[in-house]
Amino acid sequence: MDNYLKRADQVFARINQLAAISEHEQGITRTFGTEAFLQGSRQVFLWMQQAGLDTRIDNIGNVRGRIISSNPDAKTFVIASHIDTVVNAGKFDGPLGVLMGLDLLEQLVENRVSLPFHIELIAFSDEEGVRFHTTYLGSKVVTGAFDTSLLNKTDHAGNTLSSVITGMGGAINLLSHDAIAPQNWLGYYEIHIEQGPVLYERNIPVAIVTAIAGQKRVEITFTGMAGHAGTVPMDMRKDALCAAAEFVLMVQQYALANKTNMVATVGKLEVINSASNVIPGKVVCSLDLRSADGSMLEKAYQYINKFAEEIAKKHDTVTVFNLIQHSNSSTCDDNLNNNLRNSILNSGIELVELVSGAGHDAVPISQVSPVSMLFVRCYKGISHNPLEDAEIQDVAAAIQVSEKFIKTLIDQYH
Amino acid sequence: MDNYLKRADQVFARINQLAAISEHEQGITRTFGTEAFLQGSRQVFLWMQQAGLDTRIDNIGNVRGRIISSNPDAKTFVIASHIDTVVNAGKFDGPLGVLMGLDLLEQLVENRVSLPFHIELIAFSDEEGVRFHTTYLGSKVVTGAFDTSLLNKTDHAGNTLSSVITGMGGAINLLSHDAIAPQNWLGYYEIHIEQGPVLYERNIPVAIVTAIAGQKRVEITFTGMAGHAGTVPMDMRKDALCAAAEFVLMVQQYALANKTNMVATVGKLEVINSASNVIPGKVVCSLDLRSADGSMLEKAYQYINKFAEEIAKKHDTVTVFNLIQHSNSSTCDDNLNNNLRNSILNSGIELVELVSGAGHDAVPISQVSPVSMLFVRCYKGISHNPLEDAEIQDVAAAIQVSEKFIKTLIDQYH
Repeated sequence: MDNYLKRADQVFARINQLAAISEHEQGITRTFGTEAFLQGSRQVFLWMQQAGLDTRIDNIGNVRGRIISSNPDAKTFVIASHIDTVVNAGKFDGPLGVLMGLDLLEQLVENRVSLPFHIELIAFSDEEGVRFHTTYLGSKVVTGAFDTSLLNKTDHAGNTLSSVITGMGGAINLLSHDAIAPQNWLGYYEIHIEQGPVLYERNIPVAIVTAIAGQKRVEITFTGMAGHAGTVPMDMRKDALCAAAEFVLMVQQYALANKTNMVATVGKLEVINSASNVIPGKVVCSLDLRSADGSMLEKAYQYINKFAEEIAKKHDTVTVFNLIQHSNSSTCDDNLNNNLRNSILNSGIELVELVSGAGHDAVPISQVSPVSMLFVRCYKGISHNPLEDAEIQDVAAAIQVSEKFIKTLIDQYH
Repeated sequence: MDNYLKRADQVFARINQLAAISEHEQGITRTFGTEAFLQGSRQVFLWMQQAGLDTRIDNIGNVRGRIISSNPDAKTFVIASHIDTVVNAGKFDGPLGVLMGLDLLEQLVENRVSLPFHIELIAFSDEEGVRFHTTYLGSKVVTGAFDTSLLNKTDHAGNTLSSVITGMGGAINLLSHDAIAPQNWLGYYEIHIEQGPVLYERNIPVAIVTAIAGQKRVEITFTGMAGHAGTVPMDMRKDALCAAAEFVLMVQQYALANKTNMVATVGKLEVINSASNVIPGKVVCSLDLRSADGSMLEKAYQYINKFAEEIAKKHDTVTVFNLIQHSNSSTCDDNLNNNLRNSILNSGIELVELVSGAGHDAVPISQVSPVSMLFVRCYKGISHNPLEDAEIQDVAAAIQVSEKFIKTLIDQYH
């Protein structure tokens, strides 16, 4: 384990070095295409070069380093995560996967491991989508699914995506050349902090990801009748907040009853024109539904929609149920996960299998390649926050597991 | 009924004339001490004078007109309501009572009715309390309960109450001289729109008021733990909104079970730092409890407080229950109400008895005098709104009832 700890220590040193590069003096912010982002990319480029990788920055700003197999017909196995961040981010979300991947490839180069396939390390340039409100720009270019209609989107300062790419040195007309052709994908592996509390609560360092949840976002409005809180008798009221409150509890109870298979959250709830002495006449709230099981997601959506209407009627109010966004779930690959399971068990770690409720680059990649992910425990599940933290021992364990995983994969194809 | 309709028609004409006097061109706004308010007062003063009343404007700006009894030891019976308004008010809330009182006194003068007691019509200068956030300034001066510590309060422009009173022509040191001494009160009668939907729904023109509800205002905070809506399993959550939602429903259910005796409203509910993909970590909401029965009000408060804590615990959250304001209920006088009951029944109107959930000048007056109130149906219960409306037939019915009431009162004391 000592060796793994030493390597984890270097991963931490690099994470800290990258975290020091930020748009603002306080905290960590590196959104797509900014000066800080480019400075971070150059640092990652330098590390990949120093590790002996065949390194380049592609037209969307992904930093990519390859170890080439001697087999000219070989496919490519991709290890990746992202180096852009949210505003006021933690330092692990994204960089952990990139810099652990760098460590793995460094070892392969150092040990002159003969490869039956190419291995490519990618630091994706835009996963969070903060600047242009569109996610997975980096990985979508690599899968060939980049949507060129996004090029005219503007950031809050009015810069188009197109101009930002050009400003970074990218060529719009060459974006499609940066894709790995579907037939050339062998597989995909991403290491990421869990961003949830399960490993922390169960005191286990890593987990396998079985799937990335599909998601539905809904906006629900309840409209009743505003009135004087002192003068309208209880049985003459059309209280929109009472309807919304019953809706919130129904959502929670339904999701709790199906807790192995889904999560559901009412995160926003606004009483329109509220005052302490006015009966709420209108309430608008959000619903966030996630499940790895597409039919479960649909079933939950239909159930909650139907019951929202019954609840509205019961409170003499009306409801509007408006689907804002839908994304399908992505399933991780059985073969890759079997390898990952054995690697975890052979490292003496209890096996935990999780569904990822958060989205990852593995989602678009799963359209063209078998994908797999390893979650690393993070402090109390906190993420997208300067308090985001991970233990060096857990990173060492993740290195051990990942190394076994890559070794087995290489052995399989030799 | 024709005569009553004709008189109601004049009441409406005066209401419309007063409603045309406003701080703003659009809508009706006459808050205490403004130029529009003073113009309105002068108009009411003129009407009282023309009616032959012994008229003056007192030091807090109340317009007061008396008919003096020939009995030098006579007490005073007060008929009153207010002429200040909320911002963007309706035209009936306040003026209806003043101008119906004017009509009643006009008839007494015209018919040279011999009075066993003095009758005083008062147009109170500040019931709504919009400008200085303090209610009943006018009626508290008349009861001798004016709190001089309020004189230093400032309006939003920084003017003190003291300077506004002086600017209106009032003398601060003479405020106490405007009180009717406790031993000189015979009784109090106020006509007011219901400001609630009961008469509208039941299709009845007027109602007796049995009491004015006491009130408690509470601020309740639920604190759980914010988290990622996708990554925190349902059974690891501490969702403050779920706790608040159960609270909202508990309040409604409790008040419904005691609906003849109370109303309870959660009017404000704010999710702090809310986002559709974040589990609510903190929710602040309001509670407005009203009951004519002081022990019921206290019992409801204690029950809801206790259950708020149980609900918080159940959702793994904590709650803070903070009493912001308490006011006692005021009971209307049995003798006056018996007279009013007979007057309603003798007018051929079905008897409805209501508790007023809104506050009125009758509240401070009840500290020194027997009080009574007559509610007049208003359109859909809407009030404090330009849509506030009343039917001329209902005002005619209220004139008929009030005239019988005053006549009976006069006969009782002769």
